Amino acid sequence: MLEPLGDRVIVEVQEPEEKNVGGIVLANNAKEKPQMGKVVAVGAGRVLDNGQKVAPSVKEDDMVMFDKYAGTKVEYDGTPYLVMHEKDLLAIVK
Amino acid sequence: MLEPLGDRVIVEVQEPEEKNVGGIVLANNAKEKPQMGKVVAVGAGRVLDNGQKVAPSVKEDDMVMFDKYAGTKVEYDGTPYLVMHEKDLLAIVK
Amino acid sequence: MLEPLGDRVIVEVQEPEEKNVGGIVLANNAKEKPQMGKVVAVGAGRVLDNGQKVAPSVKEDDMVMFDKYAGTKVEYDGTPYLVMHEKDLLAIVK
Amino acid sequence: MLEPLGDRVIVEVQEPEEKNVGGIVLANNAKEKPQMGKVVAVGAGRVLDNGQKVAPSVKEDDMVMFDKYAGTKVEYDGTPYLVMHEKDLLAIVK
Amino acid sequence: MLEPLGDRVIVEVQEPEEKNVGGIVLANNAKEKPQMGKVVAVGAGRVLDNGQKVAPSVKEDDMVMFDKYAGTKVEYDGTPYLVMHEKDLLAIVK
Amino acid sequence: MLEPLGDRVIVEVQEPEEKNVGGIVLANNAKEKPQMGKVVAVGAGRVLDNGQKVAPSVKEDDMVMFDKYAGTKVEYDGTPYLVMHEKDLLAIVK
Amino acid sequence: MLEPLGDRVIVEVQEPEEKNVGGIVLANNAKEKPQMGKVVAVGAGRVLDNGQKVAPSVKEDDMVMFDKYAGTKVEYDGTPYLVMHEKDLLAIVK
Repeated sequence: MLEPLGDRVIVEVQEPEEKNVGGIVLANNAKEKPQMGKVVAVGAGRVLDNGQKVAPSVKEDDMVMFDKYAGTKVEYDGTPYLVMHEKDLLAIVK
Repeated sequence: MLEPLGDRVIVEVQEPEEKNVGGIVLANNAKEKPQMGKVVAVGAGRVLDNGQKVAPSVKEDDMVMFDKYAGTKVEYDGTPYLVMHEKDLLAIVK
Repeated sequence: MLEPLGDRVIVEVQEPEEKNVGGIVLANNAKEKPQMGKVVAVGAGRVLDNGQKVAPSVKEDDMVMFDKYAGTKVEYDGTPYLVMHEKDLLAIVK
Repeated sequence: MLEPLGDRVIVEVQEPEEKNVGGIVLANNAKEKPQMGKVVAVGAGRVLDNGQKVAPSVKEDDMVMFDKYAGTKVEYDGTPYLVMHEKDLLAIVK
Repeated sequence: MLEPLGDRVIVEVQEPEEKNVGGIVLANNAKEKPQMGKVVAVGAGRVLDNGQKVAPSVKEDDMVMFDKYAGTKVEYDGTPYLVMHEKDLLAIVK
Repeated sequence: MLEPLGDRVIVEVQEPEEKNVGGIVLANNAKEKPQMGKVVAVGAGRVLDNGQKVAPSVKEDDMVMFDKYAGTKVEYDGTPYLVMHEKDLLAIVK
Repeated sequence: MLEPLGDRVIVEVQEPEEKNVGGIVLANNAKEKPQMGKVVAVGAGRVLDNGQKVAPSVKEDDMVMFDKYAGTKVEYDGTPYLVMHEKDLLAIVK
């Protein structure tokens, strides 16, 4: 199991052929196009300058959108994941 | 439905042929010209260093102006949207 | 009507042929020369890290000076305006 | 009259031929040489992150030194002025 | 013994031939691929602007992932280590 | 007299031929070599984000070391001085 | 004697031929290789935004590791020293 650190989340990437899941069709601007994925793990959150920890605003199983180049790729048991900072997530798809 | 995260808002872009909605005519400086759109969703706001959350100062259905290159494009059911940070909004058109 | 967001102000630009309004003659250093204008709308101000909102220090109808390239151009009913951050204003002309 | 905004001050530049006022002779390092001038107006000061306003540490009629390229040039009734941030002032000449 | 300073941790790098430890197979994007290692020492943590010390969220013997170019290499008794900032750690592998 | 502003200090530069004052011989790495000098005036100090003023940790007549390119040159009655930020001082020579 | 200012420490550099002191052998990556040295003097520490002074976490006689290009070189009575910020120290070697 992967446990993301700090304000990071781990996202299971949705491959291009699944790009109309949830009714969303991504724009064809290849260089900047956002991607979708499912949150599979969430860090404990970032620590503010006053010592307070801010819980992430996404949770496991949320479907999220993010910038194409956000995050760092890893594979776990053959599934591709992205580890990214919560601030790189654009929106939750409901 | 798209639920923007943090200090983000989702804006339904007004196409060029609608550019005189509300009496505004945008300047013809192509590279820098601002655009207009309608706010369709608003995030929960950003978290200050003291842990306080700042509610966005725009709300759904506000007509807003923003810099041409602000935001990330997405399409939902054939409608183009921009996901952008609230600070990239210039003004509300009333 | 345009309602500037955050710490932004909207300024009605004074064209070059009006450049001696108020006794000011701007320096002839073309690239850096400041401009003058009249404040026509003022945002609610910026939010400090402690959550406090700082009211802008200019108000409607103030004549102000600003750097030549400050702000974003818009036109409203044929009048050119600049939307700029309050910190880009140099001085009030009285 | 010019009323500088924020932490800005307005300085009446001392021309090169007056460069030994107050006993100071500026170094001949043309690119970096500081200049002198007289403070003619002072802004209300900058606002700290805790909301407190910090009064400037110079006042009208102070003779000050500043970096050659600090500030923005303006002319008022034929006199050249520089509008600059208080932090660009190096020292008061007494 | 090495005692990392501040928010640093010391990681015993896992060599490429051990890259499927814990079920993880790293993506073949050579330039950006993350690495794995075991935490062997942890600093006292970083000091916040309010003077509070934030204890690191990893501990000795945690298996961690990090960006390929994170940290500074050292060798101790023939074993390669990386000294890196805690924020460069992506996730704990459990 | 020169009264430095903010966190600035004024230093009377020690010329190269005096470089072994206090037992220090500076390294011959011309581009990066630090210099020595005597503090002749000290500003009131910098203002923290909480409004508190931090008194400088050097005082008049301290012999100090600083980076070769720190500060701005001025001359007063034929003596060369450097106006620099306190943070550009490396050490006091006792 | 040299008294480092602020968060600086003075380190007596360990020459390359002494590089296996304490059992550490540094990696042969010339451009990035860290160095070792002995702390000979420690500043009073840095001042936080709340006015609190943070005492350094190293003390005289600590053997420390640091990045090769950290610090500024000085010589005192023929011994080479580096004046560097405490944050450039990687670890204490015990």
